[in-house]
Amino acid sequence: MALPETETLLLEQDGPVLHVTLNRPESRNAMSLGMVNELMAVFDAVADDDTVRAIVLRGTGGHFCAGGDIKDMAGARARAAGGDADAFYALNRRFGEMITRANVQPQVIVAVLEGAVLGGGFGLACVSDVAIAADDAQFGLPETGLGVIPAQIAPFVVQRIGLTQARRLALTGARFNGVEAARLGIAHEAVPATDIDTRLADTLKQIRRCAPHANRVTKQLVLNTLSQPLSDVLDQAAHDFASAVASAEGAEGTMAFVQKRLPQWAE
Amino acid sequence: MALPETETLLLEQDGPVLHVTLNRPESRNAMSLGMVNELMAVFDAVADDDTVRAIVLRGTGGHFCAGGDIKDMAGARARAAGGDADAFYALNRRFGEMITRANVQPQVIVAVLEGAVLGGGFGLACVSDVAIAADDAQFGLPETGLGVIPAQIAPFVVQRIGLTQARRLALTGARFNGVEAARLGIAHEAVPATDIDTRLADTLKQIRRCAPHANRVTKQLVLNTLSQPLSDVLDQAAHDFASAVASAEGAEGTMAFVQKRLPQWAE
Amino acid sequence: MALPETETLLLEQDGPVLHVTLNRPESRNAMSLGMVNELMAVFDAVADDDTVRAIVLRGTGGHFCAGGDIKDMAGARARAAGGDADAFYALNRRFGEMITRANVQPQVIVAVLEGAVLGGGFGLACVSDVAIAADDAQFGLPETGLGVIPAQIAPFVVQRIGLTQARRLALTGARFNGVEAARLGIAHEAVPATDIDTRLADTLKQIRRCAPHANRVTKQLVLNTLSQPLSDVLDQAAHDFASAVASAEGAEGTMAFVQKRLPQWAE
Repeated sequence: MALPETETLLLEQDGPVLHVTLNRPESRNAMSLGMVNELMAVFDAVADDDTVRAIVLRGTGGHFCAGGDIKDMAGARARAAGGDADAFYALNRRFGEMITRANVQPQVIVAVLEGAVLGGGFGLACVSDVAIAADDAQFGLPETGLGVIPAQIAPFVVQRIGLTQARRLALTGARFNGVEAARLGIAHEAVPATDIDTRLADTLKQIRRCAPHANRVTKQLVLNTLSQPLSDVLDQAAHDFASAVASAEGAEGTMAFVQKRLPQWAE
Repeated sequence: MALPETETLLLEQDGPVLHVTLNRPESRNAMSLGMVNELMAVFDAVADDDTVRAIVLRGTGGHFCAGGDIKDMAGARARAAGGDADAFYALNRRFGEMITRANVQPQVIVAVLEGAVLGGGFGLACVSDVAIAADDAQFGLPETGLGVIPAQIAPFVVQRIGLTQARRLALTGARFNGVEAARLGIAHEAVPATDIDTRLADTLKQIRRCAPHANRVTKQLVLNTLSQPLSDVLDQAAHDFASAVASAEGAEGTMAFVQKRLPQWAE
Repeated sequence: MALPETETLLLEQDGPVLHVTLNRPESRNAMSLGMVNELMAVFDAVADDDTVRAIVLRGTGGHFCAGGDIKDMAGARARAAGGDADAFYALNRRFGEMITRANVQPQVIVAVLEGAVLGGGFGLACVSDVAIAADDAQFGLPETGLGVIPAQIAPFVVQRIGLTQARRLALTGARFNGVEAARLGIAHEAVPATDIDTRLADTLKQIRRCAPHANRVTKQLVLNTLSQPLSDVLDQAAHDFASAVASAEGAEGTMAFVQKRLPQWAE
């Protein structure tokens, strides 16, 4: 696997875990078009790599991501004024392509949510498989307060926390902290900021105990339940189950269970 | 905008907020056919009016709404006995048309839930964008205990709180208070009855900070995510985003942000 | 109604309640193919019987169900080695048929969740209408830790608690207790193990106050909201409402309400 060169992201591989750090601290890691494209490039680079089992998304400087990038918006405004009718459309839609992709990325996506988790950062948080928030992180959808809309984000917020809470958050611009984010289900848990690293390590340890290929198949299965008829999902799942049992992972898992030891993939 | 004449509702406009008060205190604001029709007329009257940005639904006499109206039921029973096979169907279905409409009304719907929130009142609560409950309000679906079914209500309960809780509430007739309603997600929060007015005022203030047109588009967007394919929703949303940025609201929102002042619509 | 002969289940009818007890304590009630088939036979036997209004699912020996049966797996492995390519597929898929069926069984399904509620037991818990957990019950999806996948279970977990929590549980193999299960919505409540019998009795009393046929129609209605267009659901529901009102149950329910007494079905 060759990781792409990136300007807005720090990449660090630690065994089966790829740490991706949003690194634009001067703007609280605002989601620029460059960052969107680099995230896509990273997702592409590792998608088929079974040795990468988890991707940790985090931000530098104590913030996850404060939303869209003001310079990008100014640039699009200039292009729109110059006759490029699609400038804002393209900028916005590309972000949606990225979180659509993040949502189905084969690896387990772990989001560490500290400081600002706003707008686009909020949307990115909503497609993670495990989200750990700092108690005092700040969440919100500020869009309609600025005269615009949470365009590419809304579907993922509804999918994350349901219509009931999504409509309130989107239509009131409410701000809230990590504890409330965990109560709503945006994050899976909220802990004091000082405990974040420990919880992240625990979570990664848990993920390492899950078989790499089985986890890939399971993530696909879980997502498919939302878009495919139940009986189709169950038929396919039974085939995938049979394949898993017959695979090397299935044999090792059974053996490790009988021998009361950790399976090889957990070491 | 000309508001309709109403017998069962009190209407009061306060700037961008229309207060609609269910006003049949002798029956704890039971949802009569007359009330259903008047609610529809009010929703029609203001639907296209951008100056009305929020609608507050509340009941007189310390109750939100105790469910269907007994006199209407008796009347339908008489008509059914007289050969009108559709009497109950029509009565029931019309209520469903009203809450279907309330759910997609372009304004932000704020429900204030006090006292009885039962049957049809429960259903109406479930289509609000923001629901504030009194701690001691009484919620429940009493239908099957009376030998009938929560017919027009069930889909909105499932959409509001999910299948898991909806099936339990509908099949046990469980009664519960506002605190539990907030835990289940029927209401967004529960407060002591004496704090209701303050919380309502805070909520309306929050809504005023959101741009009127952006909020309309966002509500439609959020609802569309449930019925349209993801990529279609995101395509349309990107177009709507581009329109919003280019609009007067988008310009004012950006300007206000840069100038660190409230946008005009929030004043 | 003639109940089937069963080896893995204890069956006991108490008025309108059928108690079905998983009875393989030597394996913490692991879900063998025999048990799956016997559960299906029981569901078939009572499906059309209006006098059976609730089914209680519980396990002997302090455990609900620890998941799939190891001997069945070994047997399928032997058959697979002998050339029966479908051995694992058939074993797995049959379990899915059973929980698919349990989900739509006309009676109210009450699950009592004690001890191990793992894998297939977890899946079965997820299709109950009311689930009462012991505080110290142990929940989890251990599949990917064993190199396999939660194949027939995943759709019901997503339907039960939503994508957000389902993806985390399935991809981390997290273990948690009854209190957490209630917070996530897998169970409806968690109580100390010593209070389980009292809570079960209270729940069954609540269900007895609900009209038998109305509850059947309501369960179907609630489930249909997930798969049918809203207007179709509401049209059908209004017809069902009219039928319910005109039925003997509807007449008795109204009469009992007016006379301030319990309806006959609640006695």
